[in-house]
Formats: sequence, C-alpha cells, structure tokens
Amino acid sequence: MERLLAKWERLCASSSIARFVDINLRGVGQVMFQNNPLTGALFLAAIGWGSYAAGAPRVAIAGLLAVVVATLTAQWLRVDKESLHAGLYGFNGILVGLALATFLAPSALMWVYVVVGAAVSVVVMLGTVNVVKPWGGALTFPFVLTTWLLLLATYGFSGLAGAALPAGNVVTAFQPYEGSPLNVVDLAGGVLLSISQVFLKASGVVALIFLVGLAVNSLAAAAFALAGAILAVLTAHLFGAESDLITGGLLGFSPVLTAIALGTVFYQPNWRVAVYTAVATVFTVIVQAALNVALTPFAIPALTAPFVLVTWMFLLPRQCLEPATTVSADAATPRAT
Amino acid sequence: MERLLAKWERLCASSSIARFVDINLRGVGQVMFQNNPLTGALFLAAIGWGSYAAGAPRVAIAGLLAVVVATLTAQWLRVDKESLHAGLYGFNGILVGLALATFLAPSALMWVYVVVGAAVSVVVMLGTVNVVKPWGGALTFPFVLTTWLLLLATYGFSGLAGAALPAGNVVTAFQPYEGSPLNVVDLAGGVLLSISQVFLKASGVVALIFLVGLAVNSLAAAAFALAGAILAVLTAHLFGAESDLITGGLLGFSPVLTAIALGTVFYQPNWRVAVYTAVATVFTVIVQAALNVALTPFAIPALTAPFVLVTWMFLLPRQCLEPATTVSADAATPRAT
Amino acid sequence: MERLLAKWERLCASSSIARFVDINLRGVGQVMFQNNPLTGALFLAAIGWGSYAAGAPRVAIAGLLAVVVATLTAQWLRVDKESLHAGLYGFNGILVGLALATFLAPSALMWVYVVVGAAVSVVVMLGTVNVVKPWGGALTFPFVLTTWLLLLATYGFSGLAGAALPAGNVVTAFQPYEGSPLNVVDLAGGVLLSISQVFLKASGVVALIFLVGLAVNSLAAAAFALAGAILAVLTAHLFGAESDLITGGLLGFSPVLTAIALGTVFYQPNWRVAVYTAVATVFTVIVQAALNVALTPFAIPALTAPFVLVTWMFLLPRQCLEPATTVSADAATPRAT
Repeated sequence: MERLLAKWERLCASSSIARFVDINLRGVGQVMFQNNPLTGALFLAAIGWGSYAAGAPRVAIAGLLAVVVATLTAQWLRVDKESLHAGLYGFNGILVGLALATFLAPSALMWVYVVVGAAVSVVVMLGTVNVVKPWGGALTFPFVLTTWLLLLATYGFSGLAGAALPAGNVVTAFQPYEGSPLNVVDLAGGVLLSISQVFLKASGVVALIFLVGLAVNSLAAAAFALAGAILAVLTAHLFGAESDLITGGLLGFSPVLTAIALGTVFYQPNWRVAVYTAVATVFTVIVQAALNVALTPFAIPALTAPFVLVTWMFLLPRQCLEPATTVSADAATPRAT
Repeated sequence: MERLLAKWERLCASSSIARFVDINLRGVGQVMFQNNPLTGALFLAAIGWGSYAAGAPRVAIAGLLAVVVATLTAQWLRVDKESLHAGLYGFNGILVGLALATFLAPSALMWVYVVVGAAVSVVVMLGTVNVVKPWGGALTFPFVLTTWLLLLATYGFSGLAGAALPAGNVVTAFQPYEGSPLNVVDLAGGVLLSISQVFLKASGVVALIFLVGLAVNSLAAAAFALAGAILAVLTAHLFGAESDLITGGLLGFSPVLTAIALGTVFYQPNWRVAVYTAVATVFTVIVQAALNVALTPFAIPALTAPFVLVTWMFLLPRQCLEPATTVSADAATPRAT
Repeated sequence: MERLLAKWERLCASSSIARFVDINLRGVGQVMFQNNPLTGALFLAAIGWGSYAAGAPRVAIAGLLAVVVATLTAQWLRVDKESLHAGLYGFNGILVGLALATFLAPSALMWVYVVVGAAVSVVVMLGTVNVVKPWGGALTFPFVLTTWLLLLATYGFSGLAGAALPAGNVVTAFQPYEGSPLNVVDLAGGVLLSISQVFLKASGVVALIFLVGLAVNSLAAAAFALAGAILAVLTAHLFGAESDLITGGLLGFSPVLTAIALGTVFYQPNWRVAVYTAVATVFTVIVQAALNVALTPFAIPALTAPFVLVTWMFLLPRQCLEPATTVSADAATPRAT
C-alpha cells in the first residue's frame, strides 16, 4: 500500500490534474482527520453507495461538487500550499454539500446554495484557523456555521424549501415515543450508524467501509472511532435518550469525532489521554442532547456542533495533558488548521 | 470644499466647543465609515428630515442625545484622543438612540434607556476593539449588543413598552404574504431604502442625501453603497424573499454596510477585492434572512448584526487579500477601532 | 483571627488532609472572590443551614460533593499549585452541584450528573482562563456553561427530570402578575435575598451569615455586596420589574457579584471606579431581565450569566481605569484565573 501511495504522490508531483484529484480526496479524508487520498477514496465510495442505496444520488453529487468548489475557492484565495495539499480546505465543503442536499428539497436554487456554501466555508475556515491557532484546530466549525446560516435563511426564502428539517417548537418536558425496548442488536446497529452519520448516512455497510478507510491510514483512529461509538450508545441508553435517536446513530456521530480528535490527533495516546477522551466522549452525548433541545425553537439540526464545542472545551487546557516542552502554538501541527 | 474643511479644522483646534461639535459630527459620519464632519452634518440633516417627515421627531432627538452622551462618556473614560477626535466612540451611540426611539414607545424611562444605552455602547466599543484589533474593527457590534440587551429587557419591565418590535414566535415554514409581484420601480425603491435603512429610515430622499454625504468624502464609498444595495435587492428577489422586506430596504441595509466596509475601508479596491466583496454582500443577504428567522423566538430585530457577522467572517482571512508586507496588526488603521 | 489563620496555615503545610480541606473551603469562599478558609466555612455553614431549613439537605450535600470532585479533578489534571491552593478550581464546582440539586428532581442519575458536571467545570475553568487571561478572570462562566448544557440535555433524557425549571415559551409582551405593591420591608427583604441567591438560597439569615463571611476577609467586599444589592433592587423597582422577582432576590444576585468584582477585586476602589461599578451594576439588572427573556424559549434559568457578561464587558476596557504603568496582562493577579 505504501508503494502505491508513493507512486501516486510522484504522479501528483508531475500532473496538476492528479494533484487536484489528490487534494479533493484528502479533503474527504480530513472529515475524520485522515490526510490520505486512499482513505478519502474509500469514504467517497461509501458516500456514493450510501446515497445511491437511499435513492438520493444527488446527495453524493452535491458533496462532490462542494468539495471541488471549496478547493477552487481556496486556490483563488491563494491559501498556503501545505494546508491546501493536505485537504484542509475541502472537508468542510463536502459536509456543506451533503447537508444541504440532505435537508433541502432539490431545486435550481439548492445547487446555487451548494456552490455559495462551499465557497463561504473556505473563508470561514481561514478565519477560524486564525482565531483558534493558539490552542486547536478549526474542526468542522466552518461547516456548522455556514450550514446553519444557509438552513435558517430558507425559512425566509420561497425559492428554497426544507425536506428533512426538524419542526420548530418551544422546549417542553421530555415525551418518550412508544419505542420498543432496545436489545443488543439494536444497540450494535446504533454503534455502526453513529459512525456512518458522520457523513449524514444511515447505513451499516457505509460504516464498515468508513472503518476500513480509517484503518488503512491509522489503526488508532479506527479503534477510537469504534470505542467512541460504543461509549456514546451506552451513555445515551443509560440516560434514557429516545430509542430512535440511539439506533439511528444520531446521538453518536459527534462523540465519534470527539474520540478520534482527542484520542489520536491532538494528544499522544496514553492512559491519561484515554481517560480524558472518555470523559469528553460521554460529555459530547450530553451536549448533543442539549443542542438538540436548544435548537428546537430554530427548526435546524445540531450537525457536528457538539463535537466542535466539546473538543474545543477539552483542547483549551492542553497544558495539563502534554509534556511541558511541547506546549506551544504549533503543538497541533498534525492538523493545526 | 477642502478649504472650508481646513478652516473648520483650525477653528476646532482653537475652540473646545467647535471640537466637541466636530467629534459628534464625525461620529455620525462613522456609521458609514466616513471620518468627515460635513458627511456627518449631511447625515444628521437627512435623519432630522426623515424623522420629522415620519411624524416622529423624537427619534432624531434621541439619536442626537445619544451621540452627545456617548462622546461625554468617552471623554470621562479618558479614551485615546486620536480615536475620539475621529468620531469612533460616537457612531454606535447614535444608532442606539435611533433604534430605541424607533422600537420603543415614548416614556420617561425610554429616555433613561437612551442615556444608559449610549454610555454602555462606549464601554462595549472599548472592549470590542481590544478583542478584534488583530484582524478588524468593532464595526457596529457595540450598537447591536447593547440594543439587543435593552430591547430584550423591556419584556421584563412594565415601565418600558415596545412600539414596533416584532412578535415572538417559533420558526415555521415560509408563508409568503399576498404581495403584488415586483416591478423595476419597486426594486429601485428597495435599493434606495436599503441605503436609508442604515439609519433606520424608510425614505428615498433621505437615501439620496446619504449618498451625497458619502460622495463628498469618498466617491468609492458612495459607489460601493449603491452597488451593494442593487446586488442585495437582486439577490433577495432571486431567492424569493418577502416582497415587503425587499421594497422596504429591510434585507439591504446590512449588505450596503458590508460592501462599503470590505470594498473601500479594510481592503484596497481592486478586482479581486471587488469579487470578494460581491460574494460577501450576497452572503449578507442570506445571513439577514437567517438572523431574522433565528431572532423570531426572541421578538427582537436583527439590527446590523448580519453586517457585523459577515464582515468579520470576511476580514479574518485578510492575509489572502493583502500584499504580504502589509499583513500586520495595524493594517486596519483607517478605522482600526 | 489572623493568628488562628496562621496556625491553620501551618497545619495545612504539614498535613495533606488539612490542605485538602483548606482548598475546598477556599473554593467555597471564591464564589464571592474571597481566598479565605474561614469565609468558606461560614458560607458552607450558611448553605447547610439554608438547605436544611428549606427541607432539601441534598442540595448542600450535592454542593459539598461537587466541590470535592472538582478539587480531585484539578489534582488529577496537575493544575498549577498556586491557583489550586487558592480554591480557584472549586468555586464553579460547588455552584454546579447546588444548581443541579436545586433544579432537578432527585434520582441516581442526578448524582451522576453532579459528578460529571463538577469534573467538566474544571476543564472549562482551565480553558476559560487561557482565553480571558489578557483582560480578566473566568468568573462563574464555567459554572454557567456546564450547568446550562446539563440542564438542556435533561429535556432529551427520560432518566433526568426537572423539578424547578422554568417553562418553555415564546417571548410575549410583559404581563405583570397581580402582585401587591412593594413597601420598604419588601424591598429590604429583596436586598437580603439578592445576597443569599448568589448560592441559590432564599433566606435572610443565610444572607447575613454571607455578609459576615465577606467581612471577616474584606470589609470592602461586604460593603460593595450590600450596596450592589440595594442598587439592584431600586433599579429593578424603578423599571417596573415583576414584584416576586424583586422580593425573591432573583434580579439582584448577579448585580451583587458585579459590584464585588468590579468594585473590590479587579480595580482599586476609588471614586471613578465606584461610579463605573454603579453603572455596571445597574446594567446587570437590565441584562438579568434580558437573559430571563432570551432563555424563555429554552426553559432554563439565567444563573449568573448576567454577572459574567457585564463584568467581562466592563473589564475589557481596563486601560481606562488603571494607572498606565499597571496596564499589563498580569494586572488581574489577585484572581487572574
């Protein structure tokens, strides 16, 4: 595999088309922090298959269009080459495209929205990096902010309509649905879907391909993703969350990202970091429930905001989990941006 | 004109009363980034005329009182002389005064509110400058924050009552009014009112005086204001926004400010900057619609928050639009504060 | 008294158990900025008595558990010894414990919540300090953020239920209750309860013990607390706030903290500072009313967020109230963290 990647890298060095493809594939991989074109290709294949199987191929097309627009925008803005080549200006773009095509009804203006959203996500990425550089990465904050604004605005535009947006309401006391009690199979399904929902997909097969995509670049990332999903599902079940949310993976995708980020990207894995990451993962489940509630009056989904909020909360005190010598602004270089 | 201004400046240097008048006039001009007492005087005349014509002279009086209170507060706080003389501590004050008198019913406590709000806007200005100095200006954030807090609190005080506040509601799917289809005359009206609504006025005559006021100090500012208003109205129309909001200029005043700020104040005008500013202006229309929706449950208006948010978003990555040598903390000196 | 404290300090230096008790007592005292174990002991006694008298001893137990968990978490995270010994990692913890036990119905998961919340409050404390160090302290922001998230999430968990949470609603025009007109005795009661509500207690006796606890460490702090409470009650009455909120101290506890913080902790007391603090205290009443309204759709209480917001607003421009020589990052060393 490494020889294959080395060969591909030589091709990219000589061909600007191959380089462009490489940048976009790495952009897809960076959604789960993997700077690897093969990981990106596997993720993309899973997304394509998942969209096709769900009868909505336009979702995958919107994601692909968005990552390309994001990369072109980054090139036009003359961003630094190193971050560009690592795919750091693409991962928010693809998420914007997938989310808009998932939550909105198809229309010409929806595609305008995808292009504008992907371009703006790059601007927000550049700005967020400038703000959070001293202590962490931008994570998927640019995706969350851009998509929230675009989705909110649809309630003021007759040219755009929601297709799968939550209904607006005031916050009321918890009313459990008449869900059947969960068994181990249900919970295992929830674990898999917690992984596939990172890219807004509800499919066990997609989840397995994602895990393979993680493993080809980082076994630790795959392990922390799976462990994070299991911990999230158990936590949600313990607290008595809605069964449908648990089995649909909708309380687990943010914790999965928290687990990968804190456990394998920003800190060196060790026992203290593992405990710290576990607490953060559990707290991400609570924050996911909290933001679901807080966004109820606004009729928009939480997206990966719980992951961003909790990971930033647990990254800010990094001096407590790092050897004194590495506490510096560039400690996060693996994905400083 | 320049000789007149030079003569006036000499008078200000020798008379503290003239200096005080000068500071307040520049404060009014700074709402649209113009550090020019003549611009301020024209703006003030337009505001006075607009308020009188609308049968609400108290609005102009509240604005005038507020800018004076803001300047006195800044002097008591011993702010730096240069920023004070440039009117940078007055422009949020006048907006607070105009907004409170526009949205609240007249009463003795309303005037207390104007005085407290104008004074607090200076404190917020000083603090915001300290936070955003590395990459931009405070813009009208102090006005927005102070006014939002004051308006929200009226729902908890029997001594203050709303007069033109929006009704609180949960977010629901878009329900177009029965508006007549828009023609070119309607859209042209919307363009003018987008400019006059910067100071919360709905009047074409006021808009024309504002454009003259801009032009006497900066033809580029007048051009970008007009172009921003046209682009905003067309964008809102394309997305199918509410006709009454378009023709009333209520989706255009924030984009006008975005266009002036990015196109003429913080970046040097050139083709790349013009394209960047156009994208930001279009996105400000979307954010205006988004914040109108997001504030629905709170029953308060968005004010110029869309302008502040989008301009900050597009200022943070300034390294991408400036020659490498000028990328520094003091790059924004024309209005760093 | 000083000899007693000196003796106690010698005991702490030699006994790790005494040191641990000392840290936790100082943590309780730091809720009102007092780095003094005797103050903490008096506060704790008042809390215990207040909880017992209100028929809810579990509230005091939850507070005690939370401050201990917070201290243990801080030790596990190897925080800097000086801040730890000053109790700076405990004061948010005790507030989290008191608030959760006050607003939620008792259950096993409620105690899980107290432990998780207290631990997370330390992480948030460390992060907030890193962000606000240049211009101020973390104040009770970690308590507010952590508790808001935990309370919001209860609406998504069947295992946790609110006991005293506000009902969710859209914002509507002010509807005064049929409260009896206030007399001087009512207002005096409101002043006392404004002080006791800092620790979520509604008791005049508790308030008097709190004042004694303040006075043994700082007469200025006791004086500013009392003056802040009086000013807050009069302001709320002037603006026509709900009688029950005024007499219950619910519009006054944040202003009390603002008055202590700005008047005695972060600035050196003098006439200019006193005027500045008075304006901030009045504005905190307005912000308390504003946040009560803004949080209506979310069905959660404002906690001490008004204190945090206004104190930060009035701390950011510190260059205006300090001698030029002391304007530096470490100007806030008395409680920089």
